[in-house]
Amino acid sequence: MKRVYRKRSYPLDGIRRFLEPGPIVLVSSAWQGSFNIMTMGWHMMLGFSPALFGCYIWEENHSYHMLRRSKECVINLPTLDLVDTVVGIGNCHGADVDKFQRFGLTSKRATKVAAPLIAECYANFECRLRDTRMIRTYGLFIWEVVKAHVAMSPKRPQTIHYRGEGEFMISGGTINRRRKFRPENL
Amino acid sequence: MKRVYRKRSYPLDGIRRFLEPGPIVLVSSAWQGSFNIMTMGWHMMLGFSPALFGCYIWEENHSYHMLRRSKECVINLPTLDLVDTVVGIGNCHGADVDKFQRFGLTSKRATKVAAPLIAECYANFECRLRDTRMIRTYGLFIWEVVKAHVAMSPKRPQTIHYRGEGEFMISGGTINRRRKFRPENL
Repeated sequence: MKRVYRKRSYPLDGIRRFLEPGPIVLVSSAWQGSFNIMTMGWHMMLGFSPALFGCYIWEENHSYHMLRRSKECVINLPTLDLVDTVVGIGNCHGADVDKFQRFGLTSKRATKVAAPLIAECYANFECRLRDTRMIRTYGLFIWEVVKAHVAMSPKRPQTIHYRGEGEFMISGGTINRRRKFRPENL
Repeated sequence: MKRVYRKRSYPLDGIRRFLEPGPIVLVSSAWQGSFNIMTMGWHMMLGFSPALFGCYIWEENHSYHMLRRSKECVINLPTLDLVDTVVGIGNCHGADVDKFQRFGLTSKRATKVAAPLIAECYANFECRLRDTRMIRTYGLFIWEVVKAHVAMSPKRPQTIHYRGEGEFMISGGTINRRRKFRPENL
């Protein structure tokens, strides 16, 4: 039985907290009545306000076409308990299976996009496609995050960060240097 | 006394191992006889072969102009022992100080670019600017990594991953799921 996090709305200019450290995420999409999910590790923040987010998606992925057509997605942040789900999702093809059903995940209606939230993920970021110019050359989708849902606890989720070759780094301890920063550089 | 890693040349199609997990990196540059270093957390892999890497650089940074003009950089991977150096570099302006000198770092000649390697970093990736089209709109530089130097040990460096607000996540344990992957998805 997978955990479902209790979440609240989160300020968009603060989501870098969860995405900048570089975790594996799950991208969910909707198109013509079906949902899909893909595992994704190549992504980056591109702005605070508007909250911009870039990610690489290979054109061989079933999600690639769903994302281009629907122009929407949800970026879902899985925690360590979902590692086998993350691997499983990466291993099967969205045209063949309903990944929510196969992996026992719960889809939840988003507020601003048609793509579904994954309830078992720690956070969900609803996105609208902002710029398509780099898709053809680099597979780079640039999204604007329009709504964020983040679990109320724990404060620091145990995220997983892919190294390739089947190996994940698990997020570890925290070190705080706030007092050494100039305020404008935080 | 900071540690200087012993390094070897590393295959370019394997560098995702170090960059995909999302660590803070130091970007070094050279222009008209001076060097600079900046701290950078917004970046992503964009390709294996050629090895492509994207990063966001704010135009207010002194490095921004050096990078645009020189069209080269080195992406250096610091480990936990350098956390205060990383914060210090982010807090001062390259036009005013020689950051190698101020932070006691050792510059080392790169093989393919004029920008210097930082000897105290675990890995150094020499880059040439590949695409400038997204710089004006998004501050997004797309680089081709042309040479990689990686420490011979430890195998898994303790990297630091920025969460904002002065807080870093330190890389933690490792979990291996290689046997659960389809080979083509590793």
